Amino acid sequence: MTPATTPEPFTRRDYAERMARAVRDAAAMGLSGLLVTPGPDLVWMCGYRPTSDTGRLTLLVLTTGHGPRLLVPAPERPDASAAPGADAVLITEWGDGQDPYAAAAGLLIPHGHYGVSDATWAVHLLGLQEALPLTTYRPLTTALPLLRAAKDEHELARLASAAGAADAVYEEILAVRFAGRRESEVAADLARLLRGHGHSQVDFTVVGSGPNGADPHHEAGERVIRDGDTVVLDFGGLKDGYASGTARTVHVGAPTDEERAVHEIVRRAQQAAFEAVRPGVACQEIDRVAREVVADAGYGEYYLHSTGHGVGLTTFEPPYLVEGEERWLVPGMCFSIEPGIGLPGRFGVRIEDVVTCTRTGAVRLNATDHTMAVVG
Amino acid sequence: MTPATTPEPFTRRDYAERMARAVRDAAAMGLSGLLVTPGPDLVWMCGYRPTSDTGRLTLLVLTTGHGPRLLVPAPERPDASAAPGADAVLITEWGDGQDPYAAAAGLLIPHGHYGVSDATWAVHLLGLQEALPLTTYRPLTTALPLLRAAKDEHELARLASAAGAADAVYEEILAVRFAGRRESEVAADLARLLRGHGHSQVDFTVVGSGPNGADPHHEAGERVIRDGDTVVLDFGGLKDGYASGTARTVHVGAPTDEERAVHEIVRRAQQAAFEAVRPGVACQEIDRVAREVVADAGYGEYYLHSTGHGVGLTTFEPPYLVEGEERWLVPGMCFSIEPGIGLPGRFGVRIEDVVTCTRTGAVRLNATDHTMAVVG
Repeated sequence: MTPATTPEPFTRRDYAERMARAVRDAAAMGLSGLLVTPGPDLVWMCGYRPTSDTGRLTLLVLTTGHGPRLLVPAPERPDASAAPGADAVLITEWGDGQDPYAAAAGLLIPHGHYGVSDATWAVHLLGLQEALPLTTYRPLTTALPLLRAAKDEHELARLASAAGAADAVYEEILAVRFAGRRESEVAADLARLLRGHGHSQVDFTVVGSGPNGADPHHEAGERVIRDGDTVVLDFGGLKDGYASGTARTVHVGAPTDEERAVHEIVRRAQQAAFEAVRPGVACQEIDRVAREVVADAGYGEYYLHSTGHGVGLTTFEPPYLVEGEERWLVPGMCFSIEPGIGLPGRFGVRIEDVVTCTRTGAVRLNATDHTMAVVG
Repeated sequence: MTPATTPEPFTRRDYAERMARAVRDAAAMGLSGLLVTPGPDLVWMCGYRPTSDTGRLTLLVLTTGHGPRLLVPAPERPDASAAPGADAVLITEWGDGQDPYAAAAGLLIPHGHYGVSDATWAVHLLGLQEALPLTTYRPLTTALPLLRAAKDEHELARLASAAGAADAVYEEILAVRFAGRRESEVAADLARLLRGHGHSQVDFTVVGSGPNGADPHHEAGERVIRDGDTVVLDFGGLKDGYASGTARTVHVGAPTDEERAVHEIVRRAQQAAFEAVRPGVACQEIDRVAREVVADAGYGEYYLHSTGHGVGLTTFEPPYLVEGEERWLVPGMCFSIEPGIGLPGRFGVRIEDVVTCTRTGAVRLNATDHTMAVVG
């Protein structure tokens, strides 16, 4: 499942197209442009991820009428110039003793209205506001929530590769000992396997045994897993810069009829939601479909959390498959479908796949069996 | 050198005193109060470090006339309540469907002027600015740069413990093979040893062999270390939440007379700067003293970087020992003294200790020998 090859590198053209699209989308929202600071948006736009965030201003300025300009601290220029999308931006620098906000102000329209990365440090926003008191700002994710949501084919290839690696981890975790070991030990196994299958970063390794499986905020603790436990496994991270995330629920020894029945309801909910995916359907509709299956089976009040979220350069991003999200699915969107049922004090079940919306429906990137596996 | 014991926990009183001092300092600067978001300042004030930064508003509000109030997302309340300083704050929450900025606005004065954590996300600052258009803000580090700079005795004990661990790492690294191995391999040894000596986080493991030692931005690369190389080792991280950082320069085989001479100049510069530390001396004075020794020896133009920086909950924080920093040293301040000489294309030398300013002078927290050790 997991290709051992290095993924196709993104090209100057990939980055240039993304930035051009961002500028068009910004203009359509009435923005003068976008101000992007280090984080996933900057990586997506020009491939640049500073080796350490020193707190010094690094700012990509995207506006109509100009090519993309990247302002960096002088000592970080060599790093920025080595970024895969560096050819698609004009790099300018601010030096020691220079005011970075004055330097940035020279790239902005004094009366402009800009989208700014959500995670931009307040010290930088205050600096810009002081340098140009008439500019106004809007959080980028509020202005353009779906900027990175539709993935191109190279991104989809990486997401598929990350999902394949997570699938291989799941197949291997079935062979480890569960009974008599702590959740935290199985979580460590998951982390080790994720790294072994090419993940550079492990973001979550949930092991929710018995009653812990019913707690949506549980990660992995010191509870010793016992024969007869259901165990929710939910894990993921980053491989080649793109995210994985999958969940399966296993059982130590033979499950009871009730455990089987609850698992089957979650499986049907996940399948129904999957089948509902197609372009033009509102995100909230996928959530409704999954909830309806669970409610019809009499477990509506035990529905665990929202049904899904986008997956891309991060493990948790737009689109959100939740009630109230009326935006539409479009081809290329990649997101989790992860309904769950939690019976407080007893057990929980969750099944999660990352799927992508195609022109005609959906394709699963995770391909492991949905049957409740029996572990030892 | 490294106590194996768990450090004395900070008490409710420690946290309450820190927050009370912060409010007084803020008032003295003409601020209505301080708004603190997740990061080192929040950890220092109430011991709370959210397990993951979900991007949802978490805000500690410190103002005169009120006790400290911590606003958290409802699902994160149990986590916040478990923080060591939770008893010293009143925790309030904002729930699903509630506007977090409206909730925060209820805790602020509409015309107030607040210090806000430098790294607060722009999305949160914009939310507060929209909810209360007449409030104004100033970056906390600009307003109160030395807020955390003077350490109390429990903090100093942790810093001493972290330094002791780094010293043990240095003693052990002298026994590993240098010649014929890549810098990155020695860096991996340093990281392993730091973890082995109780560090929960490794922040830097610089191995600058031969000409790489002259580059202040070099970390560790693929260069193979050779007999005859000088090697700058500069490493640190976090132990029990407090930072270490030490540098020594070693030599593979016998050094030349010039290498010895340059090393001796750096050693004398470090010693002179150390001896200049006492309360009431301006930070820049320590930098000047170190530079003067190097300049008098004829190497002024090869001085590597600024002479030192504060060390505490992070490895790099105020006070900065640089020209232009006219603030005074005060007892309890903890900072690095790390002069260096870099001869481009040839080699570099750096010697770094963390020291603390006492009532009468300075005490080194690092205690390993300053002599240039010979390694194999």
